[in-house]
Amino acid sequence: MVTVAIVGATGAVGAELLAVLERREFPVERLVPMASARSVGTTVRFRGADHPVVEAKADAFAGVDVAFFSAGATRSRDLIPHARAAGALVVDNSSAFRMDPSVPLVVPEVNPDALAGHDGVVANPNCVAAILTVAVAPLTKLGHVERLVISTYQSASGAGARAMEDLLVQTADHLAGREVVPRVLRHPFAFNLFSHDSAVEGNGYNGEENKVVAELRKILGMADLPVSVTCMRVPILRAHTATVNIEFDRAVSVEAAREAIAAADGVQLVDDPEANHFPMPNEASGKDDVLVGRVRLDPSRANTLNLLVSGDQLLKGAALNAVQLAEALRAAAS
Amino acid sequence: MVTVAIVGATGAVGAELLAVLERREFPVERLVPMASARSVGTTVRFRGADHPVVEAKADAFAGVDVAFFSAGATRSRDLIPHARAAGALVVDNSSAFRMDPSVPLVVPEVNPDALAGHDGVVANPNCVAAILTVAVAPLTKLGHVERLVISTYQSASGAGARAMEDLLVQTADHLAGREVVPRVLRHPFAFNLFSHDSAVEGNGYNGEENKVVAELRKILGMADLPVSVTCMRVPILRAHTATVNIEFDRAVSVEAAREAIAAADGVQLVDDPEANHFPMPNEASGKDDVLVGRVRLDPSRANTLNLLVSGDQLLKGAALNAVQLAEALRAAAS
Repeated sequence: MVTVAIVGATGAVGAELLAVLERREFPVERLVPMASARSVGTTVRFRGADHPVVEAKADAFAGVDVAFFSAGATRSRDLIPHARAAGALVVDNSSAFRMDPSVPLVVPEVNPDALAGHDGVVANPNCVAAILTVAVAPLTKLGHVERLVISTYQSASGAGARAMEDLLVQTADHLAGREVVPRVLRHPFAFNLFSHDSAVEGNGYNGEENKVVAELRKILGMADLPVSVTCMRVPILRAHTATVNIEFDRAVSVEAAREAIAAADGVQLVDDPEANHFPMPNEASGKDDVLVGRVRLDPSRANTLNLLVSGDQLLKGAALNAVQLAEALRAAAS
Repeated sequence: MVTVAIVGATGAVGAELLAVLERREFPVERLVPMASARSVGTTVRFRGADHPVVEAKADAFAGVDVAFFSAGATRSRDLIPHARAAGALVVDNSSAFRMDPSVPLVVPEVNPDALAGHDGVVANPNCVAAILTVAVAPLTKLGHVERLVISTYQSASGAGARAMEDLLVQTADHLAGREVVPRVLRHPFAFNLFSHDSAVEGNGYNGEENKVVAELRKILGMADLPVSVTCMRVPILRAHTATVNIEFDRAVSVEAAREAIAAADGVQLVDDPEANHFPMPNEASGKDDVLVGRVRLDPSRANTLNLLVSGDQLLKGAALNAVQLAEALRAAAS
């Protein structure tokens, strides 16, 4: 039995972490929900009881065995050294250490062996990277992947609980004929979509896109994998969808791809052309498995498939993968 | 001055046709709004007056000079021969004749010369094809286009006024905690997205995707252009957005691409990385110009650019292009 801290317990991912720990019967003996000072005085619900939120600060980690960090990269950089010094195993949901060569970046269904090298901190991937790698990994058995061209349809939850709430408020305002005022993201969100709100960097790609490329490469273990990605935000609450064009070094068949997906852990084949039933965010929401389908040959390039992927941003894209990592760390330590 | 018939005058495109004819001061002497028998008794508003809707049937075209058809392919196939026999010039917004080699399929900014061969009927392209060709055509001066990889974010309006209304109703139901019941399209639409609702055909691509590929090739005059497309429906009201990955036969620069777009008719460059301001459906809605931006080099393939495109489905994707075609036909005839 272990003492578990959640830094960022009052956020959208924090709430999912609590639910996933409970559902998967993670052996929590004591729960220490942490957040910024302004949340002190509130409580979070876990296993039918209210747990008071304490301030996330350097001296808060005494006795903590496992600490989940989900409060942004700055908070992770500041506090993870203290959590480590107190002896906690850390699963970090922020981007702070993902590209640190000494920190494993892991999706358990894809690169579980990478955990072996950890030094007490394991990074949980960006939500798009987690969802895409679990979908693409089964296909790597069909041939060497030569290139990915990806367009995303990302939900509000990737920007946090406040963005989800703002989407609902803006939409209600739009329907009522009131002025729509964006309060969290930069652009109007009600019945609108836009290029991902992260800053555009020197190469013309935004921060989200550059993360996705770097993390896909690290998780898949393909340091030079050519990837083109466009990250878009759409008015969806909590599941990310993506179109994936995947080019191989040899001929591939739709049938073999479907079989590989159907046989893999962490994904579910949803591919019924007759019923026009393919992965959709409303069906991916609340599901542990990432939905994969619309598998078809790309007529414009040899050895290439098109896919559609949809996965819950808060589960496989965040909390579920984090708890899976904690489970794997504990299993390896015992 | 001419007598103008609109078949499908009570639909979403019909309403836009009336607005565009009025705004562009098309020389309408007499307006004959037509629709199915059940709309007879209703009126449409044009230039401040109500015009009674008459039934669209074989003998309704006497005296009509220009007929816009926007009531589906079956209605077009049935009635266009009668409109032609009565001497009307026909602009057909349906898919009925688009791939007929004897019928020009035209976007005036892209292939105006194709109009020359018409025999009284000109086809107005599929909305995605119109929006994409006007965006891509300026770039063909940079080099020969070798391949396009496209993912769309298509609005409700492409499925008609009832689908737009259903998106609003479903969204209100969702916000109120009521059950969401799809009444027009197959899948839930409120805070959801899905693979385009047209039937999936033998090649694994849906009807919309196969139309887009065939029409892009015909309009661009590149019969064998390799195109990969995924058409998705998103909860947006009236503008279509698309990501476009475009590969050339030679090196291209972002600067040259931006200049070509900025100099072209029918498109507007919206490309401000610093402000994270790129094409969005809320800004494309109601605009004649198609918005093009996020121009950047694709690091995963030589000679390749990524773009983002957003255009009003009811304007350049339908009514505006149709009226432009009628204007061009009249100019050529005079």
